Amino acid sequence: MILLLGASGYVGQAFQQELERRRLPYTPLARKEVNYARFDVLLTWLREKKPTFVLNSAGYTGKPNVDACETARADTLQGNTLLPLTIAQACMAAEIPFGHVSSGCIFSGAHVVEKGKSRIEKDLTKPELKHLPEIDPGAIRGFTEQDEPNFTFRQPPCSFYSGTKALAEEALAGLGQHYIWRLRIPFDELDNPRNYLTKVQRYPKVYDNVNSLSHRGDFARACLDLWECRAPFGIYNVTNPGYVTTRQVVGLIQKVLQPKRGFEFWGSDEEFYKLAAKTPRSNCVLDTSKLLAAGVKVRPVEAALLAALKEWRSQ
Amino acid sequence: MILLLGASGYVGQAFQQELERRRLPYTPLARKEVNYARFDVLLTWLREKKPTFVLNSAGYTGKPNVDACETARADTLQGNTLLPLTIAQACMAAEIPFGHVSSGCIFSGAHVVEKGKSRIEKDLTKPELKHLPEIDPGAIRGFTEQDEPNFTFRQPPCSFYSGTKALAEEALAGLGQHYIWRLRIPFDELDNPRNYLTKVQRYPKVYDNVNSLSHRGDFARACLDLWECRAPFGIYNVTNPGYVTTRQVVGLIQKVLQPKRGFEFWGSDEEFYKLAAKTPRSNCVLDTSKLLAAGVKVRPVEAALLAALKEWRSQ
Repeated sequence: MILLLGASGYVGQAFQQELERRRLPYTPLARKEVNYARFDVLLTWLREKKPTFVLNSAGYTGKPNVDACETARADTLQGNTLLPLTIAQACMAAEIPFGHVSSGCIFSGAHVVEKGKSRIEKDLTKPELKHLPEIDPGAIRGFTEQDEPNFTFRQPPCSFYSGTKALAEEALAGLGQHYIWRLRIPFDELDNPRNYLTKVQRYPKVYDNVNSLSHRGDFARACLDLWECRAPFGIYNVTNPGYVTTRQVVGLIQKVLQPKRGFEFWGSDEEFYKLAAKTPRSNCVLDTSKLLAAGVKVRPVEAALLAALKEWRSQ
Repeated sequence: MILLLGASGYVGQAFQQELERRRLPYTPLARKEVNYARFDVLLTWLREKKPTFVLNSAGYTGKPNVDACETARADTLQGNTLLPLTIAQACMAAEIPFGHVSSGCIFSGAHVVEKGKSRIEKDLTKPELKHLPEIDPGAIRGFTEQDEPNFTFRQPPCSFYSGTKALAEEALAGLGQHYIWRLRIPFDELDNPRNYLTKVQRYPKVYDNVNSLSHRGDFARACLDLWECRAPFGIYNVTNPGYVTTRQVVGLIQKVLQPKRGFEFWGSDEEFYKLAAKTPRSNCVLDTSKLLAAGVKVRPVEAALLAALKEWRSQ
């Protein structure tokens, strides 16, 4: 039996669906029933029920968006750092492997290759880079699991949310047998305030940037594939291979959904941060070579986006 | 045997001295030898060596002062929140009681009683309150262990340091058998950059406020007394009873040490925060009734201050 924490969340729901599809027995534990944030409560539960694997998709993301984490600092730390640490330590004491949903938002930018030289570029919206994704898609390479996160408390600026997610990865390092699965901007075909495709359609103005994305169902499948095929424990970037600009996403929305509204973009980063956002946003490209090399099949981001839009529907 | 963590620190040294004076066998564990911040390493050590008690005086205070914690956020969280949580969980798994050095700086102000009515006042430097300590010392009452900390991430503003200390208290609640000992502005007779009496003498300008203080040796004695007399586990304010204004401390320094320099005070809070400090400072009065009721003897703050100044010396 697999223990699923955070089952009612946006990502937890995808795990539930995939676990049911695979007919894998699982227990979705609600914190109201069993307060698994408490070490002793969780450890007792683990020792009694003996799950084969613990899957943590719980976390604190902030509502309506990540800006809310800047003020809800205790809850953000509890949900994103203390909770995973507690789960890791209880799993270690009970000798049970686990998987933790982390986030790609602990990175900013990408590796940029120009004239044969590679460098890390934290801001891909710079005027001289703005059109690089269209001119030379190969010039942008994602961060690998070997790269040190660069949008963290140790490498500011970062959002408070990103800081707490990065700190969890740091705190978990070496603690027992576990996967760290990095999700990045989830989306799928179901209209939902957490769905990136919903967000892009609802923003009064759109912020143009370059990102890797994770189709929510693909993400859950890939994570469970890693566990089921007993891939080596460790960190995995779990996004759909490739990356897209927000303009490309808007282009696909216009092409497939043909909305009546037009889309306006923020004129500049300065304007966006002055008027729409309180805390810096992570925009980044992740490399998925490790995931693919482990034998997990994930469709490219363009295919996943197109499929989601073609099947677009309300819940 | 008692396991002492953070033995080389300013407070840890006082514990070492007091443990030796009492001839209590103890092991000062250095993190370089055994990385006790890692749950598995600490748990293995605890199970092998079976200490009767674990004493955590390790923490991250920031150098030269608490402003440094605003930027060193990962280290501040690691040292003040994740480390105590890890220690608590390892001690729980090994069934060993522990004591954790917390801080009174998770509070700001005091209870103020005027015309028979009591209220919490976060800022005792307000013009109408400035002379209250001299006019009516009984009008100011310290926070008890029942009061909710009010200088925390949940009740901003707070310093990042205070936020992490308060979050540790919150995270430890209910986790096994432990003491939380709240220290507040340590001082003693030894000239040292961490000693409050050294700081007051070195500040170019002094910030006038009202505070409870902890004599470093008195603090270590009181904490060990609680453990040795098997006082009920829980939170204890461990300061010298009473409170003093910075002006009173300066007065004592002038009277006893007769320094050649004069002392200048910041004209206002605004001036202090504009020119000398980055992050808000905690200034508060703590109530020590619970400590004293447990049978622990601690001299009043004026007596401890006077004794320290009379024995004033370099290390």
